Amino acid sequence: MNCTLAETVVDALRQVLGNAPLALHEPRFGGNEWAYLKDCLDSTFVSSVGKYVDRFEAELAAYTGARHAVAVVNGTAALHVALLLAKVCPGDEVLVPALTFAATANAVIYCGAVPHFVDSEVSTLGIDVAALREHLSEIGERRDGRCINRRSGRPITALVPMHTFGHPGDLDGLLAVARDYGIALIEDAAESLGSTYHGRHTGTFGLAGVLSFNGNKTITTGGGGALLTDDAEIAKRAKHLTTTAKLPHRWEYRHDEVGFNYRMPNLNAALGCAQLEQLDCFLASKRSLHAAYARTFTTIDGVALVEEPAGTRSNYWLQVLLLAPELASLRDEILGATNDAGLMTRPAWVLMHELAHFSNCPRMNLEVATGLAARLINIPSSAGLVGVNA
Amino acid sequence: MNCTLAETVVDALRQVLGNAPLALHEPRFGGNEWAYLKDCLDSTFVSSVGKYVDRFEAELAAYTGARHAVAVVNGTAALHVALLLAKVCPGDEVLVPALTFAATANAVIYCGAVPHFVDSEVSTLGIDVAALREHLSEIGERRDGRCINRRSGRPITALVPMHTFGHPGDLDGLLAVARDYGIALIEDAAESLGSTYHGRHTGTFGLAGVLSFNGNKTITTGGGGALLTDDAEIAKRAKHLTTTAKLPHRWEYRHDEVGFNYRMPNLNAALGCAQLEQLDCFLASKRSLHAAYARTFTTIDGVALVEEPAGTRSNYWLQVLLLAPELASLRDEILGATNDAGLMTRPAWVLMHELAHFSNCPRMNLEVATGLAARLINIPSSAGLVGVNA
Repeated sequence: MNCTLAETVVDALRQVLGNAPLALHEPRFGGNEWAYLKDCLDSTFVSSVGKYVDRFEAELAAYTGARHAVAVVNGTAALHVALLLAKVCPGDEVLVPALTFAATANAVIYCGAVPHFVDSEVSTLGIDVAALREHLSEIGERRDGRCINRRSGRPITALVPMHTFGHPGDLDGLLAVARDYGIALIEDAAESLGSTYHGRHTGTFGLAGVLSFNGNKTITTGGGGALLTDDAEIAKRAKHLTTTAKLPHRWEYRHDEVGFNYRMPNLNAALGCAQLEQLDCFLASKRSLHAAYARTFTTIDGVALVEEPAGTRSNYWLQVLLLAPELASLRDEILGATNDAGLMTRPAWVLMHELAHFSNCPRMNLEVATGLAARLINIPSSAGLVGVNA
Repeated sequence: MNCTLAETVVDALRQVLGNAPLALHEPRFGGNEWAYLKDCLDSTFVSSVGKYVDRFEAELAAYTGARHAVAVVNGTAALHVALLLAKVCPGDEVLVPALTFAATANAVIYCGAVPHFVDSEVSTLGIDVAALREHLSEIGERRDGRCINRRSGRPITALVPMHTFGHPGDLDGLLAVARDYGIALIEDAAESLGSTYHGRHTGTFGLAGVLSFNGNKTITTGGGGALLTDDAEIAKRAKHLTTTAKLPHRWEYRHDEVGFNYRMPNLNAALGCAQLEQLDCFLASKRSLHAAYARTFTTIDGVALVEEPAGTRSNYWLQVLLLAPELASLRDEILGATNDAGLMTRPAWVLMHELAHFSNCPRMNLEVATGLAARLINIPSSAGLVGVNA
């Protein structure tokens, strides 16, 4: 029988997943979620202060190895504050991948700064460090310890790699570029809770890192995020800025700067504490799913399952199929067939520079990101789809 | 026996409240909170979409009489988006009371605009419309249908009254000034859920209104807020902007403008639905508390309990004592004595123009707000402190 590639992919997914309809990524609540939510409700401390916020922050720090974690309302808010604390000023430029979710670039705009789009590499799906270095050697100029974009005249203040679908980027290379050019490194680790680079947790390499606990992430707090940092002053400033910059006082309401209402409610932190207890189990299950996919897709010509980069351990947040370049034209047919079959799949985000409102932002040659976006498909990736060690 | 005024106030509070320590405002969870949270968790839809978000929005609209309600992550976010949708642009000025919580002015800053501080009146604790009108007649100039501040040269784009502690401001007067000067009216009704002006709910008079469900408010979602509007286009744009401005598509991730991650998680909306069912009961209880305070404080010379303005029904979110002007110097002693006694009390917020970062913003004569802040004390105000009809 002659099958189309789309039919073959549907069959392969069904072989691993069975016949039930499946979302791309669903949360699992199999631990203490209800117990902690109920306890939180019974305490009446559901809002901006409470023991679950403190506990969630302490446990995130312990899990990731960051000295400090500050829980906030979502990953976007964490990134906004991280950029402000990296002293990103209005009119500055911030290097971000073109291949990322819009929040990475939006947070730059919130600072009044300009995203400057950077190409990706196939092996990590993250920033191509060699290409970035070459780009900076052309346009970047060190002046008084800062990096100035010679073409625009604007300072390039921060570099924000994003660990795409959970796969850690080339952090040694990124740190070296950042150091060489006097640029602050802020990791967008929204997708990579549980992912490590040479044994160290993503989000802990730069000045600050950012996690997300949105409903589609490896663990969820409903909505939520966190800022990670080893710098006590950054942590203190992050807590202050995200809690309206109110000065502590027995009764006086005085703020010493323009702050934000970005704190994570205790109710959401209660859910996070229960989820975090199950993270290692979720990660094991997602690795088993990856292994099952690998066994199945290895037999399909022209369709590669993306593996964690060398030297890293990925959380495999979203599993990725990469079509061979000559099969890119079949991407939408595969997306259609799989979604028609009730198996939710998704292409990469439309690249940032292809969005009308970012089309005039500075950018380097983006041919690898463009090629990746044309042939990349995310497939169902929730924890619990196959048993651990299946 | 000769009592100090501070001792007299402590005794009066104890007479109404009993001897247990009391917070300024605590939430009460006596309805379907458990059931809805559990149902939400069991559905796995805890995050950015779900039936409780839709239901909470529909029920808020029905309760307030607004045609549309858009649930968001907090009141500050709602105000930010409301100002953007009122076309507040960078460099514009926005009229806000000096006597308000910092979020009112912060949201203006997030738009790149400049807060312009306005005085209050004693009878409503809200904007003094007559004084504002006189101020605008001095500094405001109508030009091409807009109002320009003649002194700064900046357009005055929006007027944001705040219904202080739940007491409705002079909405007829505010609407008239806004209309006469071509300024958009955005109501900061963060504190006034349940408060009406001539029978109509606060937050439904201007282009848009804003509610808050922070933990200290009349009802809580942990953290949360909502934008109210009768304008279908504003509502549609608010939903779009608060959900990252993603265009609907079966699989494509494309955004058509810089959006925000401001949606309310379904988990928090579940709590909101349960709380909203009890709102009328909370309001009745808070009126009973007011009546009990009124009976007690009427006997204390120089200490007045603030009543709802004529023609309005206040939610009595936070009960307010006003010291006679000549007793203002005793305010801190009363704050100290009450808090020492375990009864949490609080002065007004430090006035906005007295915060260093707002000290250079334009402002009118603020003598009434200054006088009010010097002699105002909020006293314990939670629902349930005294029985209904106590």
